[in-house]
Amino acid sequence: MEQISYDYTNAMAQAVGEENGLTEDELTQALKNFSALPAGLEKLRASGGADYMNLPYDAALADRISEFAQAGRDRFENFVVVGIGGSSLGNRAVFEALSHPLYNLLPPGKRGGPRMFFPDNIDPELVSGLLEALDPETTIVNVITKSGSTAETMANFLAFLTWFKERCSKDFSEHLVATTGAQKGALRKIAEEEGFETFPVPAGVGGRFSVLSAVGLLSSAFAGIDIHRLLAGAARMDRRIKESKPQANPALVAATVHTMLDRKKGKHNTVFMPYAQCLRATADWFRQLWAESLGKKFSSTGEAVHTGQTPIAALGTTDQHSQIQLYVEGPNDKLITLIEAKQFRKETVLPDLYPGEDALSYLGGRTLNELMAAELAGTRIALSSAQRPNTTIALPRLSEEILGQLLFMLEVQTSYAGMIYSVNPYDQPGVEAGKIAAFALMGRDGYKEKLAEISGSPNPPKRVI
Amino acid sequence: MEQISYDYTNAMAQAVGEENGLTEDELTQALKNFSALPAGLEKLRASGGADYMNLPYDAALADRISEFAQAGRDRFENFVVVGIGGSSLGNRAVFEALSHPLYNLLPPGKRGGPRMFFPDNIDPELVSGLLEALDPETTIVNVITKSGSTAETMANFLAFLTWFKERCSKDFSEHLVATTGAQKGALRKIAEEEGFETFPVPAGVGGRFSVLSAVGLLSSAFAGIDIHRLLAGAARMDRRIKESKPQANPALVAATVHTMLDRKKGKHNTVFMPYAQCLRATADWFRQLWAESLGKKFSSTGEAVHTGQTPIAALGTTDQHSQIQLYVEGPNDKLITLIEAKQFRKETVLPDLYPGEDALSYLGGRTLNELMAAELAGTRIALSSAQRPNTTIALPRLSEEILGQLLFMLEVQTSYAGMIYSVNPYDQPGVEAGKIAAFALMGRDGYKEKLAEISGSPNPPKRVI
Repeated sequence: MEQISYDYTNAMAQAVGEENGLTEDELTQALKNFSALPAGLEKLRASGGADYMNLPYDAALADRISEFAQAGRDRFENFVVVGIGGSSLGNRAVFEALSHPLYNLLPPGKRGGPRMFFPDNIDPELVSGLLEALDPETTIVNVITKSGSTAETMANFLAFLTWFKERCSKDFSEHLVATTGAQKGALRKIAEEEGFETFPVPAGVGGRFSVLSAVGLLSSAFAGIDIHRLLAGAARMDRRIKESKPQANPALVAATVHTMLDRKKGKHNTVFMPYAQCLRATADWFRQLWAESLGKKFSSTGEAVHTGQTPIAALGTTDQHSQIQLYVEGPNDKLITLIEAKQFRKETVLPDLYPGEDALSYLGGRTLNELMAAELAGTRIALSSAQRPNTTIALPRLSEEILGQLLFMLEVQTSYAGMIYSVNPYDQPGVEAGKIAAFALMGRDGYKEKLAEISGSPNPPKRVI
Repeated sequence: MEQISYDYTNAMAQAVGEENGLTEDELTQALKNFSALPAGLEKLRASGGADYMNLPYDAALADRISEFAQAGRDRFENFVVVGIGGSSLGNRAVFEALSHPLYNLLPPGKRGGPRMFFPDNIDPELVSGLLEALDPETTIVNVITKSGSTAETMANFLAFLTWFKERCSKDFSEHLVATTGAQKGALRKIAEEEGFETFPVPAGVGGRFSVLSAVGLLSSAFAGIDIHRLLAGAARMDRRIKESKPQANPALVAATVHTMLDRKKGKHNTVFMPYAQCLRATADWFRQLWAESLGKKFSSTGEAVHTGQTPIAALGTTDQHSQIQLYVEGPNDKLITLIEAKQFRKETVLPDLYPGEDALSYLGGRTLNELMAAELAGTRIALSSAQRPNTTIALPRLSEEILGQLLFMLEVQTSYAGMIYSVNPYDQPGVEAGKIAAFALMGRDGYKEKLAEISGSPNPPKRVI
């Protein structure tokens, strides 16, 4: 199997100076310090603390999902993922990376399965818009929440459930599939009562690490993506990581580069910038993974640390005309990771229509593929010349196997970074405060005291113009 | 006309502490220091240095665009904007803010005009995908580049032009419209030779400030958006700014809050987070405006300053399950601006299907609108409790007039911020280096020396795994 590569030449002091890049000594020392992390993570995995690492090996689940999708793919015209955060971003990442860019507008025979929708918001216009535009008779909804009680997901679920109940001529249960925790939760209970199919979210796998579980696989299979190949790619990366020395382990080296540049060189922001339109959603997926895993107030020993690089999703070449000005000339506080597709699935040749016109003639007879490659190389040169550290993850092609490798590498890199920062990368305590306040404001049972606290707290004088 | 409001209560020290918010004295002093900026900007405008401010008053252009769109709207099934950066982001912002969320999937009678596409990248899969999926006979392409020579735009233009030439049964000239500089440039020359319609980009208006020129208006009019009302909203904000005292000028207060928090309180990142799905593209538009205008190496006096807050586009409620963990617990280096829609164009009522189920019963009989509002309020409380400065721009509704006010306010805010940082907010010198390197790598005439320089420069040892 082809492999992805990680190029960190331009994260080194030799390329971008000692203020902005790692010296040979710093890197050597760091990799020595971190050399026990892979074994540490394996130990955690063995004790059930990193179950996401085992997902690539669940062939029985992949078979069951493939069969279910096979049976439903022609039956339904629309597939709607009702989920939020890790219960939607991975689905969209896999779908966009491996589907036609205009998938939903293609006629049925030209796409892998039903049209795909990912309403990961409770915006009333978005939800009403879907309910208006889709036909319930030909729509299947996959509601995804591990806890079975996520407010946004359950709210949208209720909206779709009513829609089916009111407008479906037959039993609506076959229009719903729940992907939820195996043991408990309101959604599992309702699914069992109402009689619709369920798939499990493993107890030890958190939302942002769940793309290779039933969470991410079911919608992928419906879109005609080969989920076995996706898992095989992830397994390949898993083996590679296990068999590598520290300096050849791409997840460990990338975690080292990220955390060291954050701590020692002031690179508090990290930009994830694919030069491939289809990886835009993968950037959004990574943005959650990195932010929610590493953005923590407390270290494992209870010290207030306020860790976490701020991840920024960008897109080449598009953001060369939006963000590169800032990246090249603004504060030198970013590590920029470029994702390079060595090969696209299409080639677009440009005609030589105006050979006498300087602004066009250099394009004649060339391909968009060549121009994309030249612009990526140009950006790398511009960033390095301005002493802005940058790394490149190169993908030999855009395929299930390669995407599986990439997703798995980024997950393990995040686990390692959590260990380096000494934080728990698998929890998200900071999400609670806003959630509780919202429950209180909605008048949910058990939140009356919180509501009184909110209403009663002394407010600073309003400054509104 | 209803007005948008700016609430900066939670950017003050009284709400988030002196380390993270402005004291009364700091704000008073800053507004005193900056009180001459509105007059300074008016002077610049009078001398032709801020022509974007005059765009809301060009009724003749708006009439001409409306008529052109009126004639073509039923004739074409697809409208494609070929542009990048400021020649695409504003188009998409206006379109998404004011159109049905599933616009392109609706049947012709249910949407404002032809299906809209914004391929703002040279990704070969994206461009090939469009050429495969659309019918040239029913497609109109609006190619937008002020200079008439932007590499990405001209490359995609060539791809579409050939497609028309090869596959259109009739004269293809009516399938193309160029929006480009009025006097010069390759695109204008070609448009004149080939005989297709053109609209002007005013000489004194840069791409990222051009949304209210023909750049942004033509596609908007084709999508059935009332561009006169959009301009009227912008003009309303212009008058408000001119008539306000410094402390009541929302653009000036917002510029003050942003720059002061950046310089004095370490808020080097600024998050733009609408709680409205339809404003996601407006966040992307703002992201370019703020980054490219303020991310500068040199001050106006030639001093190396490396200014610029890093803008981050986020979305409520979606990113509560992705970024809020980091915003609440991670480094306290962000100012977060929430955009609140006081009223949506739809209401989604949730049924009371499971009154006994704690995880659902509080939603029964309520609306998604209420839940959205509660979550926004909850986020504001969570951020403020964690001493994270946050402001809110409240929109009375989602309409042409209100969007016009918002876009214009953000543009003027950016101008003021440029004056406060003492940088030129209207240029983008940092984009050149990468562009020149890409031209050299493409073998463009006149770039041989650069190519030799690139090939000949001593490279640091490769670090690739």
